[in-house]
Formats: sequence, C-alpha cells, structure tokens
Amino acid sequence: MFSFIKKISQKKGLPPGTPVYIGEERTEKVKLTIIDYDGDKFEMHQAETVEECSHYKEKPGITWINVEGIHDISIVEKLGACFDLHPLIVEDIVNTEQRPKVDISDDYIFIVMKVITWDEAAKVIHVEQMSLIFGSSFVLTFQEKQGDLFSDVINRIKNNKGKIRKSGSDYLAYTLIDNIVDNYFKVLENIGEDVEDMEEELLDNPTPETLHKIHFIKREMIFLRKSVWPLREIVSALEREETPLIKETTIIYLKDIYDHTIQVIDIIETYGDIISGMLDVYLSSISNRMNAVMKVLTIIATIFIPLTFIAGLYGMNFNTKKSPFNMPELNWYYGYPFVLGLMAAIGIIMLIFFKKKKWF
Amino acid sequence: MFSFIKKISQKKGLPPGTPVYIGEERTEKVKLTIIDYDGDKFEMHQAETVEECSHYKEKPGITWINVEGIHDISIVEKLGACFDLHPLIVEDIVNTEQRPKVDISDDYIFIVMKVITWDEAAKVIHVEQMSLIFGSSFVLTFQEKQGDLFSDVINRIKNNKGKIRKSGSDYLAYTLIDNIVDNYFKVLENIGEDVEDMEEELLDNPTPETLHKIHFIKREMIFLRKSVWPLREIVSALEREETPLIKETTIIYLKDIYDHTIQVIDIIETYGDIISGMLDVYLSSISNRMNAVMKVLTIIATIFIPLTFIAGLYGMNFNTKKSPFNMPELNWYYGYPFVLGLMAAIGIIMLIFFKKKKWF
Amino acid sequence: MFSFIKKISQKKGLPPGTPVYIGEERTEKVKLTIIDYDGDKFEMHQAETVEECSHYKEKPGITWINVEGIHDISIVEKLGACFDLHPLIVEDIVNTEQRPKVDISDDYIFIVMKVITWDEAAKVIHVEQMSLIFGSSFVLTFQEKQGDLFSDVINRIKNNKGKIRKSGSDYLAYTLIDNIVDNYFKVLENIGEDVEDMEEELLDNPTPETLHKIHFIKREMIFLRKSVWPLREIVSALEREETPLIKETTIIYLKDIYDHTIQVIDIIETYGDIISGMLDVYLSSISNRMNAVMKVLTIIATIFIPLTFIAGLYGMNFNTKKSPFNMPELNWYYGYPFVLGLMAAIGIIMLIFFKKKKWF
Amino acid sequence: MFSFIKKISQKKGLPPGTPVYIGEERTEKVKLTIIDYDGDKFEMHQAETVEECSHYKEKPGITWINVEGIHDISIVEKLGACFDLHPLIVEDIVNTEQRPKVDISDDYIFIVMKVITWDEAAKVIHVEQMSLIFGSSFVLTFQEKQGDLFSDVINRIKNNKGKIRKSGSDYLAYTLIDNIVDNYFKVLENIGEDVEDMEEELLDNPTPETLHKIHFIKREMIFLRKSVWPLREIVSALEREETPLIKETTIIYLKDIYDHTIQVIDIIETYGDIISGMLDVYLSSISNRMNAVMKVLTIIATIFIPLTFIAGLYGMNFNTKKSPFNMPELNWYYGYPFVLGLMAAIGIIMLIFFKKKKWF
Amino acid sequence: MFSFIKKISQKKGLPPGTPVYIGEERTEKVKLTIIDYDGDKFEMHQAETVEECSHYKEKPGITWINVEGIHDISIVEKLGACFDLHPLIVEDIVNTEQRPKVDISDDYIFIVMKVITWDEAAKVIHVEQMSLIFGSSFVLTFQEKQGDLFSDVINRIKNNKGKIRKSGSDYLAYTLIDNIVDNYFKVLENIGEDVEDMEEELLDNPTPETLHKIHFIKREMIFLRKSVWPLREIVSALEREETPLIKETTIIYLKDIYDHTIQVIDIIETYGDIISGMLDVYLSSISNRMNAVMKVLTIIATIFIPLTFIAGLYGMNFNTKKSPFNMPELNWYYGYPFVLGLMAAIGIIMLIFFKKKKWF
Repeated sequence: MFSFIKKISQKKGLPPGTPVYIGEERTEKVKLTIIDYDGDKFEMHQAETVEECSHYKEKPGITWINVEGIHDISIVEKLGACFDLHPLIVEDIVNTEQRPKVDISDDYIFIVMKVITWDEAAKVIHVEQMSLIFGSSFVLTFQEKQGDLFSDVINRIKNNKGKIRKSGSDYLAYTLIDNIVDNYFKVLENIGEDVEDMEEELLDNPTPETLHKIHFIKREMIFLRKSVWPLREIVSALEREETPLIKETTIIYLKDIYDHTIQVIDIIETYGDIISGMLDVYLSSISNRMNAVMKVLTIIATIFIPLTFIAGLYGMNFNTKKSPFNMPELNWYYGYPFVLGLMAAIGIIMLIFFKKKKWF
Repeated sequence: MFSFIKKISQKKGLPPGTPVYIGEERTEKVKLTIIDYDGDKFEMHQAETVEECSHYKEKPGITWINVEGIHDISIVEKLGACFDLHPLIVEDIVNTEQRPKVDISDDYIFIVMKVITWDEAAKVIHVEQMSLIFGSSFVLTFQEKQGDLFSDVINRIKNNKGKIRKSGSDYLAYTLIDNIVDNYFKVLENIGEDVEDMEEELLDNPTPETLHKIHFIKREMIFLRKSVWPLREIVSALEREETPLIKETTIIYLKDIYDHTIQVIDIIETYGDIISGMLDVYLSSISNRMNAVMKVLTIIATIFIPLTFIAGLYGMNFNTKKSPFNMPELNWYYGYPFVLGLMAAIGIIMLIFFKKKKWF
Repeated sequence: MFSFIKKISQKKGLPPGTPVYIGEERTEKVKLTIIDYDGDKFEMHQAETVEECSHYKEKPGITWINVEGIHDISIVEKLGACFDLHPLIVEDIVNTEQRPKVDISDDYIFIVMKVITWDEAAKVIHVEQMSLIFGSSFVLTFQEKQGDLFSDVINRIKNNKGKIRKSGSDYLAYTLIDNIVDNYFKVLENIGEDVEDMEEELLDNPTPETLHKIHFIKREMIFLRKSVWPLREIVSALEREETPLIKETTIIYLKDIYDHTIQVIDIIETYGDIISGMLDVYLSSISNRMNAVMKVLTIIATIFIPLTFIAGLYGMNFNTKKSPFNMPELNWYYGYPFVLGLMAAIGIIMLIFFKKKKWF
Repeated sequence: MFSFIKKISQKKGLPPGTPVYIGEERTEKVKLTIIDYDGDKFEMHQAETVEECSHYKEKPGITWINVEGIHDISIVEKLGACFDLHPLIVEDIVNTEQRPKVDISDDYIFIVMKVITWDEAAKVIHVEQMSLIFGSSFVLTFQEKQGDLFSDVINRIKNNKGKIRKSGSDYLAYTLIDNIVDNYFKVLENIGEDVEDMEEELLDNPTPETLHKIHFIKREMIFLRKSVWPLREIVSALEREETPLIKETTIIYLKDIYDHTIQVIDIIETYGDIISGMLDVYLSSISNRMNAVMKVLTIIATIFIPLTFIAGLYGMNFNTKKSPFNMPELNWYYGYPFVLGLMAAIGIIMLIFFKKKKWF
Repeated sequence: MFSFIKKISQKKGLPPGTPVYIGEERTEKVKLTIIDYDGDKFEMHQAETVEECSHYKEKPGITWINVEGIHDISIVEKLGACFDLHPLIVEDIVNTEQRPKVDISDDYIFIVMKVITWDEAAKVIHVEQMSLIFGSSFVLTFQEKQGDLFSDVINRIKNNKGKIRKSGSDYLAYTLIDNIVDNYFKVLENIGEDVEDMEEELLDNPTPETLHKIHFIKREMIFLRKSVWPLREIVSALEREETPLIKETTIIYLKDIYDHTIQVIDIIETYGDIISGMLDVYLSSISNRMNAVMKVLTIIATIFIPLTFIAGLYGMNFNTKKSPFNMPELNWYYGYPFVLGLMAAIGIIMLIFFKKKKWF
C-alpha cells in the first residue's frame, strides 16, 4: 500500500542522473513499436533493437516510438542517447514514482503523467507511469508494461481519421494526452458507480463493513487526486509557454484538455465531498441505532423492574401469624387480583409515559 | 445520480472535434426559432430547415437563432458551418456535461452555462446546459429541450421594452445571461424554503428521516455549487476582455451580472454553512435524547434494584426455627412495616440524589 | 429567516434598470432632509418635494440629501434623474438585498453598505441597507426607514466640530461610513456579551437549550459576516482608486476606516472560532454526562445484581427434607448471618474495584 | 473576557482624530524617560514635564523618549504636537485596542505592537499595547503601564554593548521590536509547558476538568494568534518600503526579525494543531471509557440475569403435592446441586463468550 | 517534547548577532574535516585547529569544510571570521532552532536545513540542524553532532564518480542538499511502514493503545511537516535567484530537487490525510463496538427481565387457602408446565423480534 516509498529510497547515495528502475519487477521483453507517418505514408513495425530507432530519427515525417516496458534500463538509456535527452530525464523516465510534471527545453518537451485503471474486484486504483517526450519531428512514449492504451490513436493514424496525419508532433502528443485524460473519465465512471452502490447500502443497511468500504474508497480518492492534480499545471504550462515546438493551432486543443482536466478534478472533489458526507451519515446512523437499542432496553427494563419489585415484595416470608402488620395483604380475599391489577396499572402508565415521549 | 459520468466516457477514442450528444435520449423534433430585429422591425418565426437560418446571416439587424434540442447533431453541425464555428465548439455544444466556460475568439464569443430548476417533489435540482454564441450581428442559443426560458426576453424585444431593440448583439447576450442568473435566485428561494422547513423539523422533532433530508440537500448544494461557481470567472473574463464584440456601454451591465453572480455564490455558501450547522445540531440532538433515555433507565433501575434486593432478602427461606440468628426480622411484630419504611427511605434518598444531580 | 431570497426573484423577467423595491412593505411618508453647508454657513430643513432638492444642486457649498425611506420609488427616480445617476444605480438603491459594493464612475462614487442592529430580545441581527452617493459637491444617502443613525454627524456639522465644515464631500462621505463602521463595534459588543453569558452557562449547566442558542448565534454570525466582509474590498478600492473625487488628505482617513474594518472582521472571526469551540465543549459535556449517568447505573447494578441473585438463590423452595444436599445452608445455625456477611463482602469488593477504576 | 469590545464603542459619534483612552482605568503618574545618546555620550533621566522633551528634539544624537502610561491623554497630545504627529496617530496611540499595524509617512514610521505576558496562575495571556514612532533622530515608545520591558536595551545602550550606540534611530527601533518578539518566545515556552502538562494529564487520567483546560488554552491561542499574526505584514512592509528612515544596513536585521516572526507564528500554529489533536483524543477517551463502563455492566448483568431467573424459577410456590408436574425438581435428591451446577455452567459459558469477544 | 522552545528564550536580552548555542549539551570534541579537490587532485584530512582551515581558503580548487559539532561557539566564530560571514549568520548557525531558510548575499549563499531521522523504537522523529554556506570556491557545512550523513558524497568525490569533481561549489552544495532530501524519503518509508501496521491493527483489533499511536504519529507528522515545508521556498528561491554563485548548468539539478521536495511534501500530506481518516475509522469502531455491547446487554436483559418477573410472580406468598382468587394457578395440575411454556413463548417471541431488527 505504501510500498511506493520503499523503492525511492533505494536511490539514496547514488549520483544524480543515475537511472534506477523502481517499479514492479518484470522479466518480459520490452516491446518497441515504431510508427512513422506523414500526410501520405504510414509505416508501423516492432523494432528488434534500439539501434533501429535511430534510423528513423533522420527521416522526414513524424516518428513515434512507443516503448512498453522500462525495466530494461539500457534500452531507455540508448534511446535517450539517440535523441540527446538529458541524463536527468532518462532517470525520471525509469523512476516510476515520479510526480506528474512537465520539463520544457529548447529541443524537446518532457511530460510525465499517470495512467489510472480501476480494479473493480479489489476496489483499488492501479497507477502506471507514462512518460512522453516530443521534439519537432518525433514523439517518444514510455509505459511501464504492455497494454493497448494507445490502440485508438494508432488506428486513427492508420486510417487517416481526423487531422492527425496532416498535423505535427505536437498534435500527436496532444492526442496521446487527451487519450489519457479521457481514460480518467472511464475510471471516475466506475468509481461513481461504486460510490452510488455504497450510498444505497448506507441508507438501507449500514454495517461496519460499509464503513471500511467508505474508508478504502476515500483513500483511493486521495491517491487518485494526487495523480491527477498536477496535470492542471502541466497543461497550463504547455498552453502558456511560448515554444516553437507547439504550434499556434494546437493551443486551442490544449485549452480543451485543460477544460477536461478541470472537469476531472471537479468530479474528484465532488466525490470527495459526497464520501465525506457519507461518513457523517454513517456515524449518525450508528448513533441512531444505538438510540433505538437503548430505547428497547429502557422500555422493557423500566416497565418490568417495578413489577418485579412488587412480586418480590409479596414473596417475602414475614410471619403473618406473629403480627397483623406482617403482610396482611397475603391473606386478603382479593389480594392477588388486587396486586395483578396494580401491576397492570403501573405497566400501562409506563407505556403512556413512553408514548408521550415519542419513544415508539 | 452519478450517471453524468457514464456518458462522457463514451467519447473515449474518438478524434477531437467529433460531436457526440451525451444528454438524455430524445426523439422530439428540434425547434429552431429565428428572431430578427433592429430598432424598427421585428420578425420571428419557426424555421423548418437549418438552411433558412443562413439566409438571415447576411441581413442587417440582429439575428437570434434559438435552438431547442441538440440531440440532432446534424442541425448543430450545419449551423456551426454556417456561422464558421470551430469544430471543438460544435463538440462542446452537444457535450451536455461541459463545465461552464467562456471562449473568446476574434469573431464570436462562446459561453456555456447551466440552467437550474428545482424539482420540489423529488427535492433534487435539474441541470440543463445552455450554450450561447454571439458575434457582431448574431446570437445563437442552444438548449437541451423545449421550454419557455426566454419567453420574457422575446416579449421584451417584441414589445420594444427597455433599450434592447436599440442595442447590439452583446446587449441581447447580456439579457439572456441575466435571465438565467435571475433564475438561480428563484431556485435558491425554493431551496431556502425547504431548508427553513427542515430546520423547524430539526428543532421540533428530529428523526433519522431528517438526517437523510439534510444529507440529500447537502449533496444537491454540492452539485449546484459546481454548476454556478465557474460563472464568476466567465462574467469576470467578459468584463476584462478587450474585444470589439462587447461595447463600452455593455460593460456596466456585465458588472451588474457579476454582482448578482457573487450574490448567488454567497447565498449558496451561506446555505452550505447553515446546513452544516444543522448536521451538528442533529448529532447533538441524538446524543441529548440518548442521554434522556439513559437517565430514565438509570433512575428507575437504581431506585428499584436495591429495593428488589431487599425484597429478595426477606424472601429467603432460612429456617427461623433452627436458630435465633436466622432472619429474626421475619418474626418481628413490626417487621413488615419496618422493611416497607426502609424501602421508602432508600427510594426517597435516591430521588433526592438524582434531584441534586439535576437529572430531572 | 430566508425570506430575503423570496423578493429578489420577483424581479425576474424585468428589463435591467427597472427599479423594484423589495424590502418590507411600508406606508409612512418618505423623509427628505437637506443639509447645505460650507465653512461659513449651515442650513438644514425637511424638503416637501424632490424638486426642492434640485435647487440645491447648483448652489456652492456641500449639499447632503438624506432620504429616509426608499419604498416610494418615484422619489428615488426623480433624485436619480436630478443628479444624473445611471438607471442601474437607481435600481440598486431600491433593491434592498444588494451585496455591499462600490461603483466608481467619473462623476460620482456609489457605495452600498449594511447598517446592523442587534435585537437583544430575539437575539437576531437586523440588517438595513444604506446607499451613499457622492460627487464633487453633493452627498446623497438612502436609508430603508427613519432613524437617527446620522444624528451625531449632523450635530458635528451644525456645531462646526472637527474639520468637517472645512472639508469637501469626500470627507463627509468618509464620516458617514466611519459612523456605520463604529456602529458595528457596538453590535459586536452586544453579541460579545451574549457569547460570554452563553459560555458561562455552558460551563455551569449546559442544556439542550444552550445548544440551540449556540446554533442560532452561529447562524447570526454567518449573516453578519456576509454583511461586513465585502466592506473590506470597498474601502480598499476607495483607497487605491485614483479619482479626483477623493482628495489626497482624505486617503489617510480611509486607511483608518480600513484598519477598523479589518478589526471588525477579526473580531467576527474570533467570535466564530470561540463559538465553534463552544460547540465542541457542549458535545463533550453531553458525553461526559452520559458517562456519569452510565457509571451510576453500572455501580448500582453491578453491586446489587449479584446480591439479588444470592437472595434469590436462598429463596428457592428445594425440599430440604427430601435430601441433605438440598440447600442445607437454610438449616445452618449461622446460615443467615453467613449469607449477609457474604453479601457485604461482595459489595465491598465491588466498591474497591470501582474505586480502583476511579469511577467515583 | 470579551470586555475589550465594550470600550471601543465608547468612541462612537466622536469626530475622527479625537484621542480617547479606552484601556484599564489607571491613576498612577505617567513616567517619562528620556535617553539621549550618540557614539560618545549617554544621558538618561526622568522628565518632569513634557516640555522638557521638546528640548531634546533639536539636539544632535538619538533621542529616545519612553512613555510608561497613556491614560493621561494630554501628555500624549503634547508629545504628538512637539514631534508633528498626525492627530489620527495620537488617537491610535491611546486606543489600546488597535490592531498591530505600521504607518509609514515621510517624516516618521508609526508601529503598533502587542506585548504579551502569560499569567501562569490564571492560565491567561495579558496583552499590552506598545506604540513606537521613529523619525530620523528620535524614537518614541508608549506603553500602557510601567514595567521593565526595555531594561535590557537600556543597559545595552548605557554599557555601549554591540553596535547600538554607533547606529541610528532605525537600529534602536529594530532593537526594541526584536526585544518584543523575543518576549513572544518566552510566553510560548510557558504555554508549551502547560500544553505538555495537559497532554500528560490527558493520557494518564482525563477528566472534564482537562476538557475545560484544553478549551481555555485553545481560546488563549486564538487571542495570541490575533495579536501576533499582523506582525508578519508589519515587518515585511518595513523591509520592502524604500524609505530614507531605514538604512540599508538595518534591512538585514529586519529580515532576522521577519524570520523570528514566522517562527513564532509557526509555533503558534503547531500548538494549535497539537491542541486540536488533544481534543480529538479527549473525546475518544470519553468514548473508550464509556465503552469500558458498559462492558463491565454488560458482563455482570448478562451473567447474573439468567442465573437470577433460574433462582426465581425455583422460588415459585407451585403446589408440588397437587401434581407430579409441578416443579418435581424441588423434590429431587440432587435437585439443589444440579441447579447450582447448571448456574455455574451458564456463568462459565458466558465468560468464555465474553473472553472470545475480547471484552476483558 | 516542547523543550525546543525553552532554549530560544535564553537569548532574550542579548544584542543581535550574539551567537548562543541552544541545542543539547555536548562535550565531545568538534570534528573538522577538510576536503580539497579539483578535477585532478583530492585531499582530505581532519583539521586540528580552525586556523588550518583558513590556509585552504586561498588555494585554488573547491574546499569543503565539514564541521561536526557546533556547541563550541568559538570554532564557528573563527570560521565565520575567516570566511567573512555576517555575525547574524554565525548566530543562526549555532541557533539550532532556526526555521529552514536561505539567505543570498553577494559573496555566499547561506542555507539552513533540517536532517530528519526516524527513531523506530520510540516512534519519534529526531531533527538535527544542518547549515550550509557556499561561496565561489568553498562550501562550509555545520552539523550538530558527528555522523556519517555525507559519507556517500565524500566517496563519490574520492572515487571521482559522476561529474562532481569537474563541477563547482554550487554543484557540491546541490549534491549535499540532494543527499538530505533523499534522506527524507528513507524516513517517510519507515513512517509509511508504521502507518501501514497501524492501519492493519486498526481494522483487526483497535484498542485505546491504537488511538495513542495514531495521536503520536499525527504529532510527529506535524513536526516533520514544519521541518520540510520551508524547503520548497528555499529551493525555489535558489532556482529563481540570478546570482553568479549558481551556474546555468546547475539550475536543472535544482529543478530536480524542487520536484523531489514537492514529492516529499505530497507524501507528508497524503500520510496526514490517511492518518486523519484512521482517526475517523477509530472513532466509528468504538461506536460500533459500543453498539455491539449494548445489543448483547439488551437482548439478554429484555429476554430475561419479563421471565424473571413471571417467576417472581409465582413466588409470591398469597394465601391460596384464604380465597379462590389467590393464585389459583399454583394449584393447577399443569400449572408449572404452563408457566414454563409461557416463558419459552415469550423468549422465542423476543428472539424473533430481535432477529427481525437484525440485531444478530
């Protein structure tokens, strides 16, 4: 749960710029996909070696290299060397606990984002780091593991849908970021359904289990918020920065992403408020129930305790023969019916009293 | 309840600028009202086709096209093409989950707002999206469904009331925004009445039902706040922006709207504070009642438990004949009156003790 | 309580600049006081008609027109026309639910403030709107109802105390604002006394009544805060604004008001913190008492329940003659004293146990 | 407690610039100490009249006039006249409820601060106002009452320690402010000790008394915060302001004070957080204890209630002779031992049940 | 615990710039390590006297003097004199309660930071102050006590790893700061593990002990936050400041530290949120348990109290011979079985009632 901390401190004592992979251990082969396109042509294939990539660097057209798997640091380092990336950037790519951020330099823009998926069974979010670097004619993306996150975008390029084939690397970068932000809505939709279920459960039949569910989803919201919140600054920085890497026409699309990011944060905060409200309601429900339990106990106890006392009274063994003062009631002709009536009267008075107090 | 999320994620994977209607499904015919006026003339009719609209574009005077229903995307797209709107704007118009915002470009200003209505029966707010675009001589408005939201404004134009006929498209846009903001006061008035009722109920006779009501209205306030809050920035941006589309004389009216928006937000926050206070009072009330219940139980129990013990004591069957030490009280002449007196004394002492403790 | 909302929505659908009086209904005659002075002369009388006022407009010296009662809209409109006020300003004057604000134009400065009075009996604040407009040689003030709010200032002018007669309209406006801010201290003093009383009550003998008092005063603080908070921006705007209407020498006085306003807000927030703290203490007190109640019940019950059981045991009717195993204690010579001793021992052990647990 | 409000409203209705002393009533003679020094000479004596002071105004060297007691307004007014202070400044000096602030004019800088002392016995803070005015060659200080607040500084001047004798009036002013800020650390140290004691008490044996202590210290922290918080802006304003009254070399010392002020505020907020945490722990402790009390009651009651029922059962007087079904157990040979065994078994089962539930 | 306050106030009354050591009392000898290097050479030895240090000042190459122990003020003063440090800086170095800060002057940059270590046994953080001063060719570091904090960095210099030997004093300073920030991750990792353990304990078996643990770790987080938070401004100031002391190429490394600092603060706040959530869950758990306890009591009591009453009823000693109305049931043939059946019926009805209420 807090395991993400453990790995960062492994880096302690190393010189800056030393790349250390700190994500989950993986052994699978790293998948390198090269996509090269311009308005007219489209080429896509799996690269066997990193060296193949450098070949595409010189060619005209947009080159997008998608790296799935960053546990093999040497591949990232070679790519970094090929595209002249600063050592600190290579370090950041493999440091999977990076906070989302943007670094804008003259030759390229480096963006770190988090890809969120919602594990419905365990009710936890999974966070994967996605690094994106784009220069004037290339885009590099680094994912922690293989997946089909970008299949929509690849199809759009392949089928020449929209203006993507006619646009530059900045538009491709925008499309990829947009894709990830759209993904947040999907996750929030799933969480929203769970919150809705929880709320129903809360109003119908709250159990200590419900409390734990609320607690866990609240914690997941904290982590989600932490992953998404910095995105706002990132997109805002891209929008404001005057760099030749981002064309005038792309700015309006960045504004669109900015709006979506704000909306995602808005929804996260709304959920947070709703979940906090649920906690209040849960606590009140417990109090309400305790109140109900106490009332039952009190009604039963206060009715029967005096009656039991009376019964006990006439169960005393005072010697009625020794003195006329000793429990003469026991020898009355209507003694027993009288006592029964007395008891009934007390019980009824008690019930009226509780009725008046609106206890039932 | 959280269903608004579900639809946004439908858009995932589509190229940007692809309009997708994500509101409630509708089949009714879209209503297109064209209002064309200047200081002298006034014309209003229902357009059968979108093409009719483009005709008015060229004519002098102000043209206002009010579209009621945006589920037929083709109509919005055609209008967008006719008035040279950016594809992202068309996309935003039909995306009914847009966050309120303003986009200012050289040729037109695009505003997204939320129209709020209060469903008194279900105690929920309904949110409808209203998009407004105005250029130098035209105003377009898009509503999700048919309604008479703008009937007051139409009447004012028709009857040449106020300065609206003599003013430009910016004044018309202002009037429409003002109309929607005024509507917020109506909704807040209704909610205010419910809050007032709830508070009375809370002080008179709080039930778990009251808690749920407070919880639900609190949640509605969260959604309401989310819909209204961004309006502040919108109006402020319109005021500050130096654009030829907004005339000097209209600025003072925008300031007026700004004041109203601040007031709406003020009221929402005041209600929020009041509702939070009610929750505190509710919780205290439960505690107070539990306290009262416990006191009744404790008074009854602590008085009768010792008495019952004494009665039990003299109900023991020790053989008084075997030994003078065995319960000689049972054979005393005044044994029974003495025990009764003892019991009365204990009861009275207890009552005095509770009285002193201010338990009743 | 929330009734102030109801009236604002009456304005819905009217063209902007249409003045609508939304305060309490009143029928009394509007009182128009004209005060005209300069360093040498002083004139004050009740005007019968608005037209009289316009006469003073042209005269040299400072003219102050104090209007008590704004329910007669025509008077306000005529005055507005006479002094060339914008229609939106006239509308704001009669809209008694205006948020405090300042509008600075070339010819005059328009300020809306709230006059607060504390109704000691009902423990509520009353809020009255005061509008103030001043140009280079005139000051207009509009109050909702007749009162002696400004009698101090009038006396100071009449008796030529301080520098008011030698100063311009900006100094008069400052004096009037200062007067209202000073009034806030009076109200806060009264509220402070009530808070002090409440705190004593809270520590001595908190009742559910105390909770309601805390709740109500907390709500009044919310409304008070809402009325005073915007004043900060108003004074700050006046200070910063470079307008010929405010002379250099008056700025230092505005700084003084600014300091006072900050102090008022400071006190309101301090009270708010104290009241919140009182709510915490109240809740803790309830818990403490419940705890005390429970302890009494538990001590009594846990001591006597075992004793009653023993008494019950020896009240069983086993046939001692049938078997030597059947309750031989009943026939012991010291049976009864032994059982009494046993009971006393159990009781004392219990008491020691509770003493150790520090239950009493 | 809230009495500080009462006096401010006494000023209502007076023209601005009218000095009114609103502190505690005092009758003692005001003490005027004149200290005149430069690098070479040092002179210090008690002035009998204010007029004496004006004599020092013209002399070269730094003149520091320390006024202990401001209830004699005429002295303050005369000094104000002598040093050309604005009437509003004279008013602020004697208005002991001034919020800490700084006023920078061309000829002098006016600073209002609060001197805090901690009354260990009553556990309350005492707040005294200290006004400080310094021009190019003079420093005036005004305290509410006699005290030895500045004795350290006077000794340092007398004994020519540090660079004070060689520096200007701005350095003296800095030294005096530094002296007061250092004093805050002393107060915070004392409060810290009390908080520490309280925390130990809280963990060892929390009583309702502890709650009241927490409540009171929390309130004192609110007042303390209110007195110290504005100091941050004051020192920051002095640092930033470009005035010939503050020399370049003094700026670094002001930065030092700024750091200390931030540290004081930091500590106050840390204490606030700790005290809030203590309140949470207190409330939890009450709940925990209630829980413990309830468990004892429940264990005793649930063990003995069934046993008492069984005892009661065999205390019934059914006529065993009339029918073989009527309580034949009473005539069994091992009836009594059997019942005792049954009771023991029930008790033991109950205890095992509670043990399993981890109730003890 | 709050002892850090006590020492600061010792300084009260001393002239500014008087260094006073306020840390723990120490007697060990101060350790002075001199490291002198450039691209080619590396020299490191323990200095016996401060005078030795001044010798290195003039030599080319970077000189790093690491002082372990600042309780011997004379050493710090001599070093300060040797490197021309301002007296206030010397004072700040030995004032171990300094808030983290940066002072940038023309000749050197002075940074105060906190080194945090986590005492696993006592579950408290230890805070040690580290002062760092660097000029164009020297770096001075001051630690409170001996330790191997910088051993990694020393090794890196010795073994010529990374670019440290080829870089200037600013890069060395960066490396040292980076080292300390990396150390924060180590501490947070340890705290994270404790928080994780606590959370498990909380969900499995919360005890009052758990509450105290949560309380203490919450307090440690307050102190940790206080130590780390100002670092953000420090690094940000270094980044922005245009000083020849920090080379262009080092800026990107400072950005890296800035990112890490933000991440540390992020984690601290996330932990804070999680710990707050745990407190809520703890309180709910107590309520839940109390509820469970109350239910057991109520079920047992409400079942047996009526049964005990019935048993008591037939234990009354009414004389059945005197009247046929006096408890004829006692003489019925099936009296006892009937009563037993009645009791069983009541018990079963009660159980069904509780089952329906979902009490077990």
